[in-house]
Amino acid sequence: MSEGLWFFEEFTKYLLYGYNVKEYLYSCRTKFQKVDVLNLGVFGKTLFLDKKIQSAEVDEFVFHESLVIPSLVTHGYPKDVLIIGGGEGATLREVLRASSVKRAVMVDIDGELVELCKKYLPEWSRGALEDSKTELRIEDAYQFLKRTDEKFDIIISDLTEPLEGSPSIKLFTEEYFRIIHEHLNDNGILTVQSGSADPYYNGFFASIYATLKEIFPIVRPYWSFIFSFSSPWGFNLASKDTDPLLFDEDEVIRRINSLGIEGLKYLNVPLFLSSFSLPDYLKKAFGKARIISEDNPFIWKE
Amino acid sequence: MSEGLWFFEEFTKYLLYGYNVKEYLYSCRTKFQKVDVLNLGVFGKTLFLDKKIQSAEVDEFVFHESLVIPSLVTHGYPKDVLIIGGGEGATLREVLRASSVKRAVMVDIDGELVELCKKYLPEWSRGALEDSKTELRIEDAYQFLKRTDEKFDIIISDLTEPLEGSPSIKLFTEEYFRIIHEHLNDNGILTVQSGSADPYYNGFFASIYATLKEIFPIVRPYWSFIFSFSSPWGFNLASKDTDPLLFDEDEVIRRINSLGIEGLKYLNVPLFLSSFSLPDYLKKAFGKARIISEDNPFIWKE
Amino acid sequence: MSEGLWFFEEFTKYLLYGYNVKEYLYSCRTKFQKVDVLNLGVFGKTLFLDKKIQSAEVDEFVFHESLVIPSLVTHGYPKDVLIIGGGEGATLREVLRASSVKRAVMVDIDGELVELCKKYLPEWSRGALEDSKTELRIEDAYQFLKRTDEKFDIIISDLTEPLEGSPSIKLFTEEYFRIIHEHLNDNGILTVQSGSADPYYNGFFASIYATLKEIFPIVRPYWSFIFSFSSPWGFNLASKDTDPLLFDEDEVIRRINSLGIEGLKYLNVPLFLSSFSLPDYLKKAFGKARIISEDNPFIWKE
Amino acid sequence: MSEGLWFFEEFTKYLLYGYNVKEYLYSCRTKFQKVDVLNLGVFGKTLFLDKKIQSAEVDEFVFHESLVIPSLVTHGYPKDVLIIGGGEGATLREVLRASSVKRAVMVDIDGELVELCKKYLPEWSRGALEDSKTELRIEDAYQFLKRTDEKFDIIISDLTEPLEGSPSIKLFTEEYFRIIHEHLNDNGILTVQSGSADPYYNGFFASIYATLKEIFPIVRPYWSFIFSFSSPWGFNLASKDTDPLLFDEDEVIRRINSLGIEGLKYLNVPLFLSSFSLPDYLKKAFGKARIISEDNPFIWKE
Repeated sequence: MSEGLWFFEEFTKYLLYGYNVKEYLYSCRTKFQKVDVLNLGVFGKTLFLDKKIQSAEVDEFVFHESLVIPSLVTHGYPKDVLIIGGGEGATLREVLRASSVKRAVMVDIDGELVELCKKYLPEWSRGALEDSKTELRIEDAYQFLKRTDEKFDIIISDLTEPLEGSPSIKLFTEEYFRIIHEHLNDNGILTVQSGSADPYYNGFFASIYATLKEIFPIVRPYWSFIFSFSSPWGFNLASKDTDPLLFDEDEVIRRINSLGIEGLKYLNVPLFLSSFSLPDYLKKAFGKARIISEDNPFIWKE
Repeated sequence: MSEGLWFFEEFTKYLLYGYNVKEYLYSCRTKFQKVDVLNLGVFGKTLFLDKKIQSAEVDEFVFHESLVIPSLVTHGYPKDVLIIGGGEGATLREVLRASSVKRAVMVDIDGELVELCKKYLPEWSRGALEDSKTELRIEDAYQFLKRTDEKFDIIISDLTEPLEGSPSIKLFTEEYFRIIHEHLNDNGILTVQSGSADPYYNGFFASIYATLKEIFPIVRPYWSFIFSFSSPWGFNLASKDTDPLLFDEDEVIRRINSLGIEGLKYLNVPLFLSSFSLPDYLKKAFGKARIISEDNPFIWKE
Repeated sequence: MSEGLWFFEEFTKYLLYGYNVKEYLYSCRTKFQKVDVLNLGVFGKTLFLDKKIQSAEVDEFVFHESLVIPSLVTHGYPKDVLIIGGGEGATLREVLRASSVKRAVMVDIDGELVELCKKYLPEWSRGALEDSKTELRIEDAYQFLKRTDEKFDIIISDLTEPLEGSPSIKLFTEEYFRIIHEHLNDNGILTVQSGSADPYYNGFFASIYATLKEIFPIVRPYWSFIFSFSSPWGFNLASKDTDPLLFDEDEVIRRINSLGIEGLKYLNVPLFLSSFSLPDYLKKAFGKARIISEDNPFIWKE
Repeated sequence: MSEGLWFFEEFTKYLLYGYNVKEYLYSCRTKFQKVDVLNLGVFGKTLFLDKKIQSAEVDEFVFHESLVIPSLVTHGYPKDVLIIGGGEGATLREVLRASSVKRAVMVDIDGELVELCKKYLPEWSRGALEDSKTELRIEDAYQFLKRTDEKFDIIISDLTEPLEGSPSIKLFTEEYFRIIHEHLNDNGILTVQSGSADPYYNGFFASIYATLKEIFPIVRPYWSFIFSFSSPWGFNLASKDTDPLLFDEDEVIRRINSLGIEGLKYLNVPLFLSSFSLPDYLKKAFGKARIISEDNPFIWKE
């Protein structure tokens, strides 16, 4: 280890990741969380929330393409999209790739964070936050959804893990996902970033799957490899109607073209389809997973 | 970070991984390398060579199934298999899954290491080193190949990265791969563990691909995610005749059944096929990769 | 930082010390504490209790000479000596340097630890634990003192810091020191290892001073520099009668000769006297220190 | 270890110190060195040069009083003082405590560093750099001394350790100290900060002592404990005429009063005298130390 400035993150108390800091950019504590923006060796500019890595220049495209593109393609012609969380603005950026999208509502509880990301991480949102189709709401997503009767074609959950005491705990429960379900149109789709998909810590991924299965007729878990998260990463796509597993390559190409999506750096057509192929260790975990509820929430243990 | 005993590994000088040591098991320096066997939190029993992680109880099956099974399936009826390296004996274990295999030659330069793995990591080899089909040779693979005129159906290269000064440097060159080519039967297959497949450090993976392309008519890179390596991992399958990309699911099932392979914990039929779908960032890297030769070797820079 | 095995200790949550492990020797959990014996670079063989450094080959002589010799010299002719704690046996070793000593009682709560130190750290005790003058009692010092009515010339408190939940908390209170006082002969002396004497964390040193001042007519704090503790270290010598500050060099020489003490590696006559000269920052801390009682104990906060 | 920003320093490759960063203040690379100014837990504002700790708010007074006050007192009436190095301006601050000082020349090679210290560490110099008696020269001390024929009453060497490749290597040699000797008045004094005085790494301290003994009739090594350096620290006071060991307390008091020195936070009269009492392990090291010369320089090995 070279001497000097390092940022340390505990994946859990058994695994420690040390990132060499090339350049310190900004730190503060917003009303909701500690924010650190650093320029790291290898990873480049990187955002940490409450000292957990959120996204890094080197591969934020892997995460954000993986989170957003599958729902766009599966739906085929989304007009109204809701993003829960996603403060960096990169999820929004990916949503706006689809020419069919007329309105993208992003609800993030932390307005200070959104402003900081615009200032320090403009490469993430690339103007998306100022797009005329964007509607940014700084409020608690739960309150927003209980108050409004708007419906969406796609809802994307881009939230941090439910650490002890975190407001995101209630946003990973059956009760909450039922509310989401009510705000989706008949062919609507929900995608949930669902944490690590490694052989040890996959209970969160699996439990979200099991919980969504109670509510949605079609739930398709998929994964991608986020280097800066040091782990394969899981996503759950819950659908009221369309099943992406029924697509062949031609169908995916047709849909991508129709949506006008181009310039992807991670996903391509075969990889889109391959993402749904999961290893046997995850299949086994899905079989044993429990349902997450307000009475029995999932709290990410360190 | 909790206090106490930790093992630290530099992925490179910018990325540090700290592993909490639950139990110290064994350390020594063989004639060739430093060996550490530790029981880590999360990872379980873990082998380090020259302070680099080699394989961990938690997911050695991911690595070893990924390294071996694709060549077995692609070949379809391998009888003679050669393993270069693979001291833990788990590569051998996977090779012996195929009922067609009559002879598995394993050439590892470090006999002390092989003995230590038998003693401290018996769950890796599970008796494979004592199997009557196994022929263990403790010698330099390069010398072995130059001396012998034996031919094999499959050769599997399970070597450590070519660190500065390492004897494995010459085992990743065009000259060496040409020798390998001569020792393969007409429908022979070579699989090379090829290092990280992340968006930053993928030059090794790509250069091995480019080098094999000079020699073999068919080269199919694939990947899997090794949690204990903190990275997606690349493999190159070079084939004289058969192309696994032409298989459909039925064909893969037929071959697996015919080989009598069962009990896999990572790979399954769809994931086998999906492993060959690589992201655009890797495709771009393959396009720009250079050929590795003795005059212009690849040395893993930290 | 070189890769490989390290032992990490938090001095507090702001200061982390990393020790490179040359050789792992032994670890276990006794009934009372976690024990780690390691061979470290620079420090040599080192004992950790509950992951806190206790003593290291490189300078255990500095600590143990500093802890014991001043009381021997100040008393001048100790016959009965009591050691509270001191599991390594090195405090006992120093006590037995004085030819006047007829009986050295060592009371340590952790018999397993004493056995481990005999086995793994024989250079510490050098046979002292088997000396015919030694009386080893494995029991709680508090219980021993309440039960017995024996009196001693010197009592030496060689205990770990009172971490949250530690049994040593009550062994640093006014109530306890009053019991100690009753077990000292008329010219008896108590020496207490009193923790760091640095400019920041000196409240423990100062509070023990203030507490002893309530009970003993003479309290003389002194310090020495324990490299392996990364800090200057404080001791309090509380005396019923004799004041070491009244000694000149000739008097100290006379006493050392009379006790037959020789072969010291740290202390010498001028340094003995100099140890009582403390910096102004400590004097200020002593002036503001509080009394430690069972109702208001001192707990070492991390 | 808590997560987040840390600064790591290798004392040597066997000992690692981690400092929790409360606040990042400034980093740059001057023409001569890497500069980091951080606000650390416990240590407060801290300066690192080339990633080695130089001085910390918590105890820079211990270092700077220890470095400067003994020479002022030993001389008794210094008028012209030269400081070699000392970029923070705190050595200068201590020199200007003596009312007799008419002129304080400070020669530091790194003008950028001096400006940064004025800006970020004003508590160190407290206006001393702007004092009318101060003459700041930004140049190589060696060149300055070869060029000038000025003489001084006191010369203070406040330089970083001679790491491999450092320009300070030649400023710790017999040849250089002879040049220093020529620039001292008849009763002149040189004080050299001389590195760690611990039981393991004391060869630098001892070798400077042995080298100065070749040139000066009186050389008095002394020490103090710098908590933020995690080690006892050595200084050598070389004198042409006056021997501080001949002073008694009254003489020291008389001299301090005559110099008008007040407000010290570390040193006091007994501690001044005690600083010259060294442990037997250092005395032994002094006996075996070698002379440092340009042909046989001392290079701080990590």
